[in-house]
Amino acid sequence: MITEQGCLARRAALWNRLPSTIDTALITARPHLMYLAGFEASATVFNSQESAAALLLTRQGGAVLVADNAQEPFSRAAFVTERVEPLWYRCVEAAPHRGGLLAQATADWLKSHAPTGLAIERSQVPWGQIEGLLQRQPGLRLHDLDPELRVLRKTKHPDEQAQIRESLRVAEAAVAAARAEVRPGMTGLDLQRLVQRVAGEQAGRAVHVYGDFVSGPGAEAGGGPATNRAVQAGELVLLDYSVVINGYRGDFCTTFVCDGQPSPPQREMHAACLSALTAATQALHPGKTGREVYAACRAPLEKAGLAQHFPHHAGHGIGLGHPEPPYFVPESDEILEVGDVVTLEPGLYIPGVGGMRFEHNYVVTEQGPLQISHHSLSLER
Amino acid sequence: MITEQGCLARRAALWNRLPSTIDTALITARPHLMYLAGFEASATVFNSQESAAALLLTRQGGAVLVADNAQEPFSRAAFVTERVEPLWYRCVEAAPHRGGLLAQATADWLKSHAPTGLAIERSQVPWGQIEGLLQRQPGLRLHDLDPELRVLRKTKHPDEQAQIRESLRVAEAAVAAARAEVRPGMTGLDLQRLVQRVAGEQAGRAVHVYGDFVSGPGAEAGGGPATNRAVQAGELVLLDYSVVINGYRGDFCTTFVCDGQPSPPQREMHAACLSALTAATQALHPGKTGREVYAACRAPLEKAGLAQHFPHHAGHGIGLGHPEPPYFVPESDEILEVGDVVTLEPGLYIPGVGGMRFEHNYVVTEQGPLQISHHSLSLER
Repeated sequence: MITEQGCLARRAALWNRLPSTIDTALITARPHLMYLAGFEASATVFNSQESAAALLLTRQGGAVLVADNAQEPFSRAAFVTERVEPLWYRCVEAAPHRGGLLAQATADWLKSHAPTGLAIERSQVPWGQIEGLLQRQPGLRLHDLDPELRVLRKTKHPDEQAQIRESLRVAEAAVAAARAEVRPGMTGLDLQRLVQRVAGEQAGRAVHVYGDFVSGPGAEAGGGPATNRAVQAGELVLLDYSVVINGYRGDFCTTFVCDGQPSPPQREMHAACLSALTAATQALHPGKTGREVYAACRAPLEKAGLAQHFPHHAGHGIGLGHPEPPYFVPESDEILEVGDVVTLEPGLYIPGVGGMRFEHNYVVTEQGPLQISHHSLSLER
Repeated sequence: MITEQGCLARRAALWNRLPSTIDTALITARPHLMYLAGFEASATVFNSQESAAALLLTRQGGAVLVADNAQEPFSRAAFVTERVEPLWYRCVEAAPHRGGLLAQATADWLKSHAPTGLAIERSQVPWGQIEGLLQRQPGLRLHDLDPELRVLRKTKHPDEQAQIRESLRVAEAAVAAARAEVRPGMTGLDLQRLVQRVAGEQAGRAVHVYGDFVSGPGAEAGGGPATNRAVQAGELVLLDYSVVINGYRGDFCTTFVCDGQPSPPQREMHAACLSALTAATQALHPGKTGREVYAACRAPLEKAGLAQHFPHHAGHGIGLGHPEPPYFVPESDEILEVGDVVTLEPGLYIPGVGGMRFEHNYVVTEQGPLQISHHSLSLER
């Protein structure tokens, strides 16, 4: 659960980064409405399909949420100091253009408050929300929040860590069910629906699930969309998915054999992947770079003579985005910090032999990695 | 399935509406990427969580999709004449800010093509995509696409109608399953998961489902999010949901008793709702206004002395949005046209007696309404 305390701390951290000439910040990207105000219009409830909102922060501590009347159940739950609720629809008049209404209400607020310096998410903020202000105050200083928020989002606050752990707890129950229930003849789509159902049951609410649900050749390809292809007995099943709750997700993967025993080369690949995971985990200390974590992950695969079958990253940050900084890749100089939440996911894919990937999630602490996912990495069901 | 022919027809219709001074249109809202180019980054596949794209249309017939390399499986399926694929992530370098990359690639295209007149979705287009152009060509004429697209979207092309009908077919199978399987003790969330599963099985792919899954007091309130409240024997179960496929959805509702018989007043309410539905259906002819459809729906409820329990609209348009024009409300002067796809949904909600709503979807034709949903409206299971 994203908390008011967490939102206040993140808003304070944001203001600490902004030049003193900036007195107002306009937030429009959906992940950032959750990050800074705990606001999300649920995608599983009517009226949410095209909904959107804007958040206006002031250096004096104001947090004004602009969200139309149909979003009231969600805006009421947000951690803000004030709400602007333009009337979109009340079943009496034809509803106006919803995005246009939001743009107008936001533009009106900005014009009446005449900021001396405005921060915006440059790649996100709709033109219609700031057009009027820029015409009226052509010299207005605009500061780009995109890089600021990217930096801030890298290390996770306690409520964010708790939210990611909830996502993992739910996802673990679902993968345990998939291990128990997988049978030859089940399709990738069957497995995805099974995971979706159990994840929803565990979460006690509707959740969004996405990822790879593949087997056999799909596992050798490393993943891909679920299809109607049926799992065959003896094939590897690769499940790599995320459960999104309140905008946050963990990310994990495991691989196991459906009705059969792993072949000797598959056992070798599995052992090499687990060694890679262990080695990479030991690199998860503050101050390490993304390339160091990647190198630590790759070394055991080199030693096993299998590194040519490891084509992707060793892992990455996870949270409101997927992937997000830091990236564990050959050329990343990003530096691990206390509070980073990351995933490690070594994998090997050998045509005719099998494809597999094993993944856990961690919080980086002063003392090193704290593992926060607890699903089985056994190759046998 | 949204077709190339349909996209070309919609692009032609858009150009027909734009002033001749406009030579370029920039499209960024997700529904409109589907509407005009058949593009959607699936929400159930990795990398789609923060993905976005931009579509640049030229009066000469060009359709340039800007979508980063990780969206390639989806951009490949789009109906465009050219693709710009900035490199976001290849597991070698840390990935840059994804929205910033899109903004830059779009801005670069615009600057190098120097439009003489640009059309944008004013409430949607990110500032970062047009900022550079506006600085370089401060006198550039910007034309707002929001009202144009609102008008165009009201009547549906044949491929859009087919897509909505597919959504309904899938949703009908799911509601039939819910009718057959509902038992006392099942919760609203159980029903939602059941519908999600069957809808996915019917669609042969992962689908997004949203709506009302309520019973008893939840039905008397007219709907709301699914919860862990268990259905009691003899209670009314109200299911009002949409299944989204390729961005399009139908919208239907039905109500039935779980393990029991409707009470005599519930039977009266049901009869009145069905009379209202029939009367409103008969008003679905080209040239009728939204208020006329509303009045036709309300009249039988007035006659039955129940109209004070009918608090909402009689229906609305449905498609990429929900609701969307035309609105069947007391003060709508919107005019029905051939090709409009609409829903009618009279409902009655009486505390202590019950809440119910019955809904079908229609295409407006020269000859009148063509019903395109076929689920049962029986009050008994």
